[in-house]
Amino acid sequence: MSDHAFAPEERDALYKAIFSRRDVRGQFAPDPVPEEVLTRVLTAAHHAPSVGFMQPWNFIVVQDPAVKAQIHADFSQANEEEAALFTGERKALYSRLKLEGIREAPVNLCITCDRERSGPVVLGRTHIPTMDLYSCVCAVQNLWLAARAEGLGVGWVSILHEDRLREALGIPERIVPVAYLCLGYVSHFHETPELEKAGWRNRLPLEDLVFRDRWGGTT
Amino acid sequence: MSDHAFAPEERDALYKAIFSRRDVRGQFAPDPVPEEVLTRVLTAAHHAPSVGFMQPWNFIVVQDPAVKAQIHADFSQANEEEAALFTGERKALYSRLKLEGIREAPVNLCITCDRERSGPVVLGRTHIPTMDLYSCVCAVQNLWLAARAEGLGVGWVSILHEDRLREALGIPERIVPVAYLCLGYVSHFHETPELEKAGWRNRLPLEDLVFRDRWGGTT
Repeated sequence: MSDHAFAPEERDALYKAIFSRRDVRGQFAPDPVPEEVLTRVLTAAHHAPSVGFMQPWNFIVVQDPAVKAQIHADFSQANEEEAALFTGERKALYSRLKLEGIREAPVNLCITCDRERSGPVVLGRTHIPTMDLYSCVCAVQNLWLAARAEGLGVGWVSILHEDRLREALGIPERIVPVAYLCLGYVSHFHETPELEKAGWRNRLPLEDLVFRDRWGGTT
Repeated sequence: MSDHAFAPEERDALYKAIFSRRDVRGQFAPDPVPEEVLTRVLTAAHHAPSVGFMQPWNFIVVQDPAVKAQIHADFSQANEEEAALFTGERKALYSRLKLEGIREAPVNLCITCDRERSGPVVLGRTHIPTMDLYSCVCAVQNLWLAARAEGLGVGWVSILHEDRLREALGIPERIVPVAYLCLGYVSHFHETPELEKAGWRNRLPLEDLVFRDRWGGTT
């Protein structure tokens, strides 16, 4: 059907990365991540699509235990605030979940967005101003898949106060921290997402999510 | 270093998808995309990470020429508005760029975000409310890479008015259209991004984008 399709075994490898990628929180090993491996996954991130080819991302590689400790302290407070929003069984379940690996993961990584990277008018961003932030998220996902292929687990920590993250990392006002990730080798990858395993939520049937030609449309 | 790393040829296949993925606008072939191929790339999207495992996405597969024509008409107007923001050589260059393949691509795809998918309190979204939109962008990037491996080109069209896109597709108020994509088989993939080839912008050196431990930090 296409001259440009990958060979079946190449395609299988990509799908293996997509389907076996996990949000890792609890299984980080202390082994250091070699610089050349880190460079490969950052290069994968840097080859994400970006609106107007603006490449708005920066990568702050955090390995200093003092910086990690500061960010972990903020997580702990934010986590208490979030836990307070759940009640009953849900609260009990929430309190048992491990939701970050900030101190255990040898590498933490903040992916940021410089919204002024290529001047005030960015091709393709004028009608949808969030396109630059979305570009940075594409970089996150490229990195996540590359990390999986390298045998590295990645966890996205979103239970953080943006202003405290800025302070901890000295991020200027104009820069948006898009993702705070924990990276490292792992003892194992779970077969299914941890939240599914824990009974938090199940995967939805894909067919319920696909419409044809318009919202709610069926063929 | 890791028992969980992919075999070298599997890793190469993933990097091939990442580095040869392009934002395609001009090379769509009219060949239909078989349903099983479409299902594979949608399944890849559906296996993206999502905050609190909320899976907030829907996929509107647009193949009706009338719907495409309406969206293309909006693109044309939005494109004129955007062109007016550039001046001189930049404006001339802008006017020569092909920025969408809405009518030529056999499949258009709108990926949306239902911000209420799993109730008002979503695990991991309380401090960074945009995490649900970001999850949908991770789905976009999974789909984009899967499409590349299938030999399908994808173009992200962001020169659209969100309100008119909602109207054209009947998208309810609470749902956010995150990405409007064009998909189809292609005559060829460019070696480098089209905007780089056209002299719009160059790829930045990765080493200029990486900091250590804090913003601006070097090792």
